[in-house]
Amino acid sequence: MSKRNAVYAQSGGVTSVINASAYGMITAAREADFIGEVYAGLQGINGVLDENLIDLSREDPAAIEALRYTPAGAFGSCRIKLKDLDKDRAAFQRIVDVLAAHDVGYFFYNGGNDSMDTVDKLDQFAASHGYPLQVLGIPKTIDNDLPVTDNCPGFGSVAKYNTISMMEGSMDTESMYRDSTKVFVMETMGRHAGWIAASTGLASRSEEDGPHLILLPEVPFNPETFLTALGRQVEAHGFCAVTVSEGVQNEDGGFLSEQGTTDAFGHAQLGGAGVFIQDLVKGELGLKVHGAVLDYCQRSGRHLASGVDVEQAIACGAEAVRLAGEGLTGRMVVIQRDGNDPYRWSLGHTGAADIANKEKKLPPEFIREDGFHVTEAFRAYCLPLIQGEDYPPYQNGLPAYRRLGKELLPKRLPPIK
Amino acid sequence: MSKRNAVYAQSGGVTSVINASAYGMITAAREADFIGEVYAGLQGINGVLDENLIDLSREDPAAIEALRYTPAGAFGSCRIKLKDLDKDRAAFQRIVDVLAAHDVGYFFYNGGNDSMDTVDKLDQFAASHGYPLQVLGIPKTIDNDLPVTDNCPGFGSVAKYNTISMMEGSMDTESMYRDSTKVFVMETMGRHAGWIAASTGLASRSEEDGPHLILLPEVPFNPETFLTALGRQVEAHGFCAVTVSEGVQNEDGGFLSEQGTTDAFGHAQLGGAGVFIQDLVKGELGLKVHGAVLDYCQRSGRHLASGVDVEQAIACGAEAVRLAGEGLTGRMVVIQRDGNDPYRWSLGHTGAADIANKEKKLPPEFIREDGFHVTEAFRAYCLPLIQGEDYPPYQNGLPAYRRLGKELLPKRLPPIK
Repeated sequence: MSKRNAVYAQSGGVTSVINASAYGMITAAREADFIGEVYAGLQGINGVLDENLIDLSREDPAAIEALRYTPAGAFGSCRIKLKDLDKDRAAFQRIVDVLAAHDVGYFFYNGGNDSMDTVDKLDQFAASHGYPLQVLGIPKTIDNDLPVTDNCPGFGSVAKYNTISMMEGSMDTESMYRDSTKVFVMETMGRHAGWIAASTGLASRSEEDGPHLILLPEVPFNPETFLTALGRQVEAHGFCAVTVSEGVQNEDGGFLSEQGTTDAFGHAQLGGAGVFIQDLVKGELGLKVHGAVLDYCQRSGRHLASGVDVEQAIACGAEAVRLAGEGLTGRMVVIQRDGNDPYRWSLGHTGAADIANKEKKLPPEFIREDGFHVTEAFRAYCLPLIQGEDYPPYQNGLPAYRRLGKELLPKRLPPIK
Repeated sequence: MSKRNAVYAQSGGVTSVINASAYGMITAAREADFIGEVYAGLQGINGVLDENLIDLSREDPAAIEALRYTPAGAFGSCRIKLKDLDKDRAAFQRIVDVLAAHDVGYFFYNGGNDSMDTVDKLDQFAASHGYPLQVLGIPKTIDNDLPVTDNCPGFGSVAKYNTISMMEGSMDTESMYRDSTKVFVMETMGRHAGWIAASTGLASRSEEDGPHLILLPEVPFNPETFLTALGRQVEAHGFCAVTVSEGVQNEDGGFLSEQGTTDAFGHAQLGGAGVFIQDLVKGELGLKVHGAVLDYCQRSGRHLASGVDVEQAIACGAEAVRLAGEGLTGRMVVIQRDGNDPYRWSLGHTGAADIANKEKKLPPEFIREDGFHVTEAFRAYCLPLIQGEDYPPYQNGLPAYRRLGKELLPKRLPPIK
């Protein structure tokens, strides 16, 4: 059998360890006897549509090695989702044309639930149009909201980063509350599911430790109940540290971050759920409040990655190549939990269609009865995922993150109009 | 000479390494042949006023050891400033009474410019009232705005944390700009001086690396000039990463964070300079913007401390004890730069009055001519201060930060009314 080439591409919001999956995939593909050259799409599926394929053989081997510890999307990611097969036929045809022009037989897509929709559809399209292609999904999302898989690469590191940030922010507030700030509010990512916000609950190892309250998208927000709970914490400890997910909604189903405020320019206010909670506490209770919004710093904070997460991210990338070698297509690698004490895991796979467009929310057994914190069951689930420190190497005081050369293959097709 | 006791107290906003100074001071004091017991004020000078003195001999030695790597103020800090000697005579008398009741001959105050005002006044008061007391200042401030000293313990770590956060946030945005966020705004602390915001300039090692623009309190903000500069960066790189100091002021001298916006509850908006810049860019240029406000996480982010900073913080604490042994009082330890290549430093001291209530702003030679970035001279100043990684030990995936027992000495005086 003649070797055919492979394309790897990144999709959706990036993570601290998506490049570690790229590293795992590229390394395994170079060792696989059935794969020829390894290319990467520039800015996700855009790179295929535009025939912007990065020639990885031209990259400095040290830069490929550095993918292991370089955060964000080294090849560029994308936020486009292909439409249905019958509505976006031209786009799927173009993808197949570009892949055919470069004799690509393997497409590896590293992303979340939208990306697995693309994996599934591209697989169907190629099969029904007689183009021999294996399409494999590599899981990635800080949100941890993919079904089937026990957890998602990217989550362990964002959980570790946010938990430690909450720990540090809470300790800061505890130092200051006597004459100064009494409430610390930290907003986390997670628009639709509360996994990230919940993870900060690992920082509460005693009643004094923040977060004292966690606001989850799964629990409708009631201002009175919240302010009462907060008042009790300030009474008990002198201060209160609150984690709020950006996705928290009020009882009518509207996001806290879209409460119709306008800024000095008369535009809708960008300030999110965190600023809303800060304003509420300050306005209603008159307490001094400070707030942190870690935003992109949390999902690209590779300086504080989880060792388990890095290991799993690399393994998922390599496993996708192994699945290709077994002749599989339209599948995504999943992580299975084989035991909690000690934590053991292995890899499996599932149909990309089982993942596409689905969201796994926090189950009720992970949310404390009052809705303001997590349960022991959640801790048992989450704690193994933040184990181990995997520091990047440093150079002159800063992480030795690298940028790729991203030299493109010569184009073989006319551009699309 | 009979041994007299010592009190240590923390003051002002905490840092990642203020407890490292406590560790240095306590360790040196226990070795010093002229000091008896070592106590600490609970919540800064409050602990002396209220006679809440922590008996450090009752602490687990491992907890004292852990101060080396535990962030925030382990003894509690304070935000009170004593008034003038003639206006607050009762407070100074009370301090002397409490110190006398516990035979304290040495008071070590770990803080910034307000705290050195207290050092200076307490020294004068004790001398003029015949109470034998040596008062020594240990420098501390993330703001790096104390005069005389070359730099301040706390700054190197906050600079390292913010520089790496900007590096990671900028890389994230670079991954996503094709279909998503084009501008990333990161707000840093530093209400009156731009040292922290400027430090993030170390992340710009090439033209593509953020921050592409830095907004400093030393440079009056002009929206048009800023938006033009930002547009050019987006044109050149596809995206732009902006650092904005919380202390940036418009040309009329008002803080950007106090532009008269009101929230959904009709209260003045808490959102700071970062949210202002985000709204401006979104509203005027229609670009997708994300923003981070690291807040307390930056100043207590001990997981990412600078090795040089930790070393200097410990040394400053120990040096204050050595100065006490030399009979000095009313002095603050200062850090002197003895060379840049390689970086060499030593310790000296200055009168607390030279520090009190003064602010060292960024000098013009550290600000690029267009006002939007730093110069090579600033890099040469700042880079040595972020060298070295000093990671805390980890336990079960989280830093092994410790809380002290904080057992108080039995009171010997009636409480103040």
